[in-house]
Amino acid sequence: MEAESGNKKFSLVELIRKIDVLPYAHEVNRYGLFEKSTYKFLAHDGTLIGYMLPLVAERFKEHSDCVSVDEVARTVAIIPALDTIESRNLKFKEIAEAWRSMNTFNILKGWRNELYVVYNPSHTPYLLVERAFSMLLGVITYGVHINGYIPPELSEDGKLKLWVPRRSYQKPTYPGMLDNTVAGGMGYPYGVFETCVKECYEEAGLDEAYVRENIKQNGVISYIYQHEPEVYNNEFGLIQPEVEFIFDLVMKPEKIPKPTDNEVQEFYLMGIDEVLTRLANGEFKYNCAGVIIDFLIRHGYLTIGMELEYLEIVNRIHRRLPFPSI
Amino acid sequence: MEAESGNKKFSLVELIRKIDVLPYAHEVNRYGLFEKSTYKFLAHDGTLIGYMLPLVAERFKEHSDCVSVDEVARTVAIIPALDTIESRNLKFKEIAEAWRSMNTFNILKGWRNELYVVYNPSHTPYLLVERAFSMLLGVITYGVHINGYIPPELSEDGKLKLWVPRRSYQKPTYPGMLDNTVAGGMGYPYGVFETCVKECYEEAGLDEAYVRENIKQNGVISYIYQHEPEVYNNEFGLIQPEVEFIFDLVMKPEKIPKPTDNEVQEFYLMGIDEVLTRLANGEFKYNCAGVIIDFLIRHGYLTIGMELEYLEIVNRIHRRLPFPSI
Repeated sequence: MEAESGNKKFSLVELIRKIDVLPYAHEVNRYGLFEKSTYKFLAHDGTLIGYMLPLVAERFKEHSDCVSVDEVARTVAIIPALDTIESRNLKFKEIAEAWRSMNTFNILKGWRNELYVVYNPSHTPYLLVERAFSMLLGVITYGVHINGYIPPELSEDGKLKLWVPRRSYQKPTYPGMLDNTVAGGMGYPYGVFETCVKECYEEAGLDEAYVRENIKQNGVISYIYQHEPEVYNNEFGLIQPEVEFIFDLVMKPEKIPKPTDNEVQEFYLMGIDEVLTRLANGEFKYNCAGVIIDFLIRHGYLTIGMELEYLEIVNRIHRRLPFPSI
Repeated sequence: MEAESGNKKFSLVELIRKIDVLPYAHEVNRYGLFEKSTYKFLAHDGTLIGYMLPLVAERFKEHSDCVSVDEVARTVAIIPALDTIESRNLKFKEIAEAWRSMNTFNILKGWRNELYVVYNPSHTPYLLVERAFSMLLGVITYGVHINGYIPPELSEDGKLKLWVPRRSYQKPTYPGMLDNTVAGGMGYPYGVFETCVKECYEEAGLDEAYVRENIKQNGVISYIYQHEPEVYNNEFGLIQPEVEFIFDLVMKPEKIPKPTDNEVQEFYLMGIDEVLTRLANGEFKYNCAGVIIDFLIRHGYLTIGMELEYLEIVNRIHRRLPFPSI
């Protein structure tokens, strides 16, 4: 589909390909390169829980009291002795802190003092690790993304409007880019809905009672991100499987989102045409573009008749991840 | 989640696993068995367009003026000489009719005199084949499925209701099972929306003006079906990649669907609780169950808090198919 802007940079499917980057098994050559260039990260019972780059596996060899690295099988496996979550948390905490203090990896400069959860096949926590460190392990990370919108029937001109924030220019990641109304990572011990309520207050000043009354969970998106496609020999190739729970929040016209933390610069109220133009211009943080494209599809604003790559778009943002999950 | 019935037969994820059956690449052993047990069906330029069983490939060996069968590469490839759609249509028509008259395959007893389209990577038609015959080729088939519903704000008791038909007991396939309000295969030359309008009239007596005013396309589901999992040596194992375009149709309370053909026995108006009970009882045709589960998710009636296998459900019904598509 065409956005209105003359200097369109991205088609919608191109935006989606920016977040769902890892090749699929049917892309035989690229998938083969991925398989032979990476390590499988395994739980102590052999369950696959992540994809790790060789530069990370290499450093893990120094920690045989935590994992065993097999260069033939290309696996990094948590040792059987670590059969309790407490013992695993402790070992990975030690390693994370050591690597942080030694500046082993650039990504650890983004240390957040926030724990992320890796799950068992039974959907219970298997391991808690520092958010920045989880990126090195190639495990699934979770977030919530909320579309705050004025539905057509409540809108002055009868057209749906989305509340779109601009990220603070001071944010370390994606400063000044457009974002979803509210979004945040799922840090331990918050559940999906608790994270929602917390972030709605912090990022948009919305109180819990309003959120509870007007929000619905309408789906989930998932994809496997790499900053640079087919790079397996430096940190730009870190493999990041992501799951984002999607909520739609009805915004009454009189309800104006107001940032209460410093993460948002400003909120804009945009119609669909403006959203499409700004998507095409590449103004949205890429995974937020994915969330908005999913919103447009679910609400009937983007159809097979308008977008030739419709099926690829829908499929890529609902990728089946080969790991246990929440 | 629990349905109300005491004798629940299926969880929701079990229903989804009935339609998305073919193993994924990360299920290494089962995927390996699939790969070595089947043939890749290739376009004349080498593009993968289907997965074929050996019993079909075997019969294609008699038709070297149409395809070449390579037992080492395990491919059935349309010969380069068939470089126009007309030439391909003709050859495949001859083969389909010959096999039908010889009773080569049981599935050809379901001959429909309806053409299905196989697509180029550019989303243009590559080949037209009889609907029943397409099942032997393992190519994508397309349909439209329509959820006719009374939204809460129009409903007497303030709760959403779905119109659910029972299939005629005379239908050759899935007689007497529950279905989506309207559904049908996409036969040539009808487009997605045209098929919608046609089927809404035929199956529910809804006129085009009403449909146009009240329908939205809200997504698409895709999956790879086999009647029997991991069977590759008889027709029950035929590989059927399916794409169903999903529409939601607002039904005003005074609008009562009435079958105009003989495919529907009766229409029921059901609340969500009844729908869930009947899903759990296995009363719905399986792919229609998938469409309803997608509806429940999109409308916020089925959330991660209610369904542990939520992510698997969402991912499986949005499977990326390794073939070109519409």
